[in-house]
Amino acid sequence: MTKIALAIHGGAGTIFRSSMTAELEREYRGGLENALRAGWEILQKAGTSLDAVEATTCVLEDFHLFNAGRGSVFTHDGKNEMDASIMDGKTLNAGAVAFVKNIKNPIKLARLVMEKTEHVLLAGDGANQFAAQMGIETADDQYFFTRHRWQQLEEAIAAGRTILDHSEISTAETPRRGENDAETRPVLSVSSSDIPHSAFRNPHSKGTVGAVACDHFGNLAAATSTGGMTNKKFGRIGDTALIGAGNYADNATCAVSCTGHGEFFMIGVTAYDVAARMKYKGVSLEKAANEGIEYLTEIGGEGGLIAVDPSGKVALPFNSDGMYRGFVTAESEMTIEIYR
Amino acid sequence: MTKIALAIHGGAGTIFRSSMTAELEREYRGGLENALRAGWEILQKAGTSLDAVEATTCVLEDFHLFNAGRGSVFTHDGKNEMDASIMDGKTLNAGAVAFVKNIKNPIKLARLVMEKTEHVLLAGDGANQFAAQMGIETADDQYFFTRHRWQQLEEAIAAGRTILDHSEISTAETPRRGENDAETRPVLSVSSSDIPHSAFRNPHSKGTVGAVACDHFGNLAAATSTGGMTNKKFGRIGDTALIGAGNYADNATCAVSCTGHGEFFMIGVTAYDVAARMKYKGVSLEKAANEGIEYLTEIGGEGGLIAVDPSGKVALPFNSDGMYRGFVTAESEMTIEIYR
Repeated sequence: MTKIALAIHGGAGTIFRSSMTAELEREYRGGLENALRAGWEILQKAGTSLDAVEATTCVLEDFHLFNAGRGSVFTHDGKNEMDASIMDGKTLNAGAVAFVKNIKNPIKLARLVMEKTEHVLLAGDGANQFAAQMGIETADDQYFFTRHRWQQLEEAIAAGRTILDHSEISTAETPRRGENDAETRPVLSVSSSDIPHSAFRNPHSKGTVGAVACDHFGNLAAATSTGGMTNKKFGRIGDTALIGAGNYADNATCAVSCTGHGEFFMIGVTAYDVAARMKYKGVSLEKAANEGIEYLTEIGGEGGLIAVDPSGKVALPFNSDGMYRGFVTAESEMTIEIYR
Repeated sequence: MTKIALAIHGGAGTIFRSSMTAELEREYRGGLENALRAGWEILQKAGTSLDAVEATTCVLEDFHLFNAGRGSVFTHDGKNEMDASIMDGKTLNAGAVAFVKNIKNPIKLARLVMEKTEHVLLAGDGANQFAAQMGIETADDQYFFTRHRWQQLEEAIAAGRTILDHSEISTAETPRRGENDAETRPVLSVSSSDIPHSAFRNPHSKGTVGAVACDHFGNLAAATSTGGMTNKKFGRIGDTALIGAGNYADNATCAVSCTGHGEFFMIGVTAYDVAARMKYKGVSLEKAANEGIEYLTEIGGEGGLIAVDPSGKVALPFNSDGMYRGFVTAESEMTIEIYR
């Protein structure tokens, strides 16, 4: 019999215990716990994995400290542009949106793309037009305004990274709101046009949220959502919106949601890579997930992933200093962790 | 010693000998031959696979009959929006653009994304802003205007597919310019909102161009470019712009360029799937490529792919009625084929 399971992440990156206050850590843990509870309740009532990952991701999007939905970082133009994707492991159907604006829960829009269109990925103004036709809930700019994200944008712009600059400077996952934490945020001042692409600059924080689930029927699903990169320009799309890169689900193997420096997950096709290792090498979920992260390390990438298989096993490997994460399964209590 | 090799495609789809005139077939063959010659000359002079696939793809983009560059189909708004991607198998660097406008050769812009930015994928107006900064060659709307593509748009709009309709109705790869070929073009009149996503409607033609190459140094590269879907709306992005879906290259395995109904290549992660089969199962290029298309068929997708490995072997499998394709290797003459 299939055992239900749910795993989540709230982003991987440079997260040290030493730079975290007890109060802030409580707040993060509370956000993760609320998200897990929302999905777990659905799974316990024999709901679908698709509903569970969507509900869980909505809670993560609504939580102001994660870089997704409400807590999204600002683009160069002071906007919040969000990406999200969802995949159904039973049918291989998938839906995704890239740089949408003013959508309260981008993951819901991704699901509508999956269920109401013939497409997998809609982007930009077109995706917002689709959202309007669907009557999905929007929110004004004020809803998405969070002080620490705005400060990050101001710092990024002040650093003079205005030419070809899309990477995060300091979307610290441990914002000390109001405090001056500039000294703890390495600001990269080189112009990105001097940097070869092979050395994608490593942002120090990788905000993204995600959930993977196995339901009562043994069906898998994965959802991923992000607010992108602080000060990004030029319509950059990262791995979160891309099936196979940041998100993947197939009942035959596993469901995966990734978080990290997106470009490496894109060239490594990381989410599908984990599934392919199970499918073609016949290794376990844990081994495939660990190998996936080892390969990511090999090609220079930083981040982590969460994965679940149809027997309800979960894996949450990462190669960064920390990853906001949690899981609950039929066989284990709710567990929430942040550090290595 | 590595043997140089080059393979190209100009799209897969419903291509029957019976609906092709001798004159038109000559024109198609001429377009494919010119493209092969451009890349082969580079490879023969010990140039890089990256330069070869770029040059080859430029010729295919400039050729008015293929749905890429100049011959791109029209969106619902009467615009030409193009996607392209390129990947370097030696470094795993990659660059891609989605729905860019008025760029003469989108594949050149994809290469600039790879070489001049920290990102892999730029989309929409942002990508065009990047293009302007790079000073890349543009072309006015008139350059992209082709009569048969405009007729296709008018037919698509006349069919009343205005709500959620992005799929090609009739971007026939065998346009009989000036002729009324409506009876040979199945017009799908159902509203797409009635159709479950699991049954992505199959367009009858899959315009895309692409090239894969192995150079003197054993380095692989892949390039793919498309004008998208006739009458598309909502900023749909297909597989062509997505590394792992429509394009992939890794010296350790193979270089792949896909053409077909993009959504299936996205959920099947087809280009990387071929590489993963070689990497994890240890099968040959030919077997991996054939299995990749078998899996595509299994999940309901239609189209084809071209692939090359570091020993200079090529594979060009497809499950559609035809695929415009050609190859030339150190061991075989230039070969151009259209039908099954």
